Amino acid sequence: MEKVNVGKRILSANEQFAQQNSQLLAQRRQLCLNMISSPGSGKTTLLVRTISDLKDELRMGVIEGDLRTDIDAQRVRATQAPAIQIETQGACHLSAKQVNDALEQLPLDALDVIFIENVGNLVCPSAFELGENGKVVVLSVAEGDDKPAKYPAIFAKSKVMLINKIDLLSGGLVEFDIERVTTDARRLNKSIEIFPVSARTGAGMPQWYDWLKEQVRQTRR
Amino acid sequence: MEKVNVGKRILSANEQFAQQNSQLLAQRRQLCLNMISSPGSGKTTLLVRTISDLKDELRMGVIEGDLRTDIDAQRVRATQAPAIQIETQGACHLSAKQVNDALEQLPLDALDVIFIENVGNLVCPSAFELGENGKVVVLSVAEGDDKPAKYPAIFAKSKVMLINKIDLLSGGLVEFDIERVTTDARRLNKSIEIFPVSARTGAGMPQWYDWLKEQVRQTRR
Repeated sequence: MEKVNVGKRILSANEQFAQQNSQLLAQRRQLCLNMISSPGSGKTTLLVRTISDLKDELRMGVIEGDLRTDIDAQRVRATQAPAIQIETQGACHLSAKQVNDALEQLPLDALDVIFIENVGNLVCPSAFELGENGKVVVLSVAEGDDKPAKYPAIFAKSKVMLINKIDLLSGGLVEFDIERVTTDARRLNKSIEIFPVSARTGAGMPQWYDWLKEQVRQTRR
Repeated sequence: MEKVNVGKRILSANEQFAQQNSQLLAQRRQLCLNMISSPGSGKTTLLVRTISDLKDELRMGVIEGDLRTDIDAQRVRATQAPAIQIETQGACHLSAKQVNDALEQLPLDALDVIFIENVGNLVCPSAFELGENGKVVVLSVAEGDDKPAKYPAIFAKSKVMLINKIDLLSGGLVEFDIERVTTDARRLNKSIEIFPVSARTGAGMPQWYDWLKEQVRQTRR
């Protein structure tokens, strides 16, 4: 019982900050997406390509979450976009308080979209709301097509699934059934948008960009 | 303060069960390895191949941890090896209590090695001892060579790092610097053994098998 009560108290402190973040974003009509995946699915490469390809249409900033290092923030800053690195010092997910602090450091007036790149972890980040407008789950084809069945929570909660690294399918070295993943993900979440992409080659990225631009339009209304 | 205290209490309940497991294994002189990785690094494929290739030399059983489904236990059982599935119902790591229960269900007298395949998560499982003789971290080349730098805890604590899916390097579609990973891992953990392997093609597996058989010999002494 004690465990349950404490769990609730921690979550509700997180929820308070999530609500603050959500209100700030709503007042400013800014889109904020929480990117969640296993380690190494290619979230940073996806963001770097998105920022570069859309640099004349959307102004984007990134909040980077990692246990250690600012490798990812450095990669984003190389595109000239602003990036705030949060080092969680071992914690397995970002908290709404950390995002709250990072939002204060970003030049919000100069941004249309704020991406939060969560800690690489397909489990824990799905349980902590950050005040975002939506979650985007990234799944690399190298991880296998059983992930929605085995890790359902994040697929049930996401607005979008990006199936990344589809260029690996061409060599025949990776087996991955896009239809199986689509069926399993839609069983958990009827309205999830699914975009197979390669952040490396650019394949499929325009569909993701169209979705992103439409979300920015809707958030501005 | 409250958070810190509760954290300690939960860990120490886990530690009590870990100690029980450790004593049971020591009495029986059985080797037990805790396999930890991101989702989709190929842990199950590695175990299935290891069990098949060594079936005339070592008798192996598996404790499978997943949030949902018994897909992995079914794959192991197809090799005729015994497998106990633990569904964590959303929890991000196995606990020593769950392993304690699973050990009671395995035919221990008929086994030389017990593998624990932890929940796919590079962060949380590293903080929970299960009573094992050693941790084995599995890293797929598709995940990128920055993982020891970004997720140091599990690399610091593991006896072995298996660098899996090295067959993907041949196509030139995946960039992965084995030297960088080796340097970063050894900086955290001087004595870590490193085996680049492909569970799919079998490349490099004999070195891992030699290590495994030597560990069984040492545990029996």
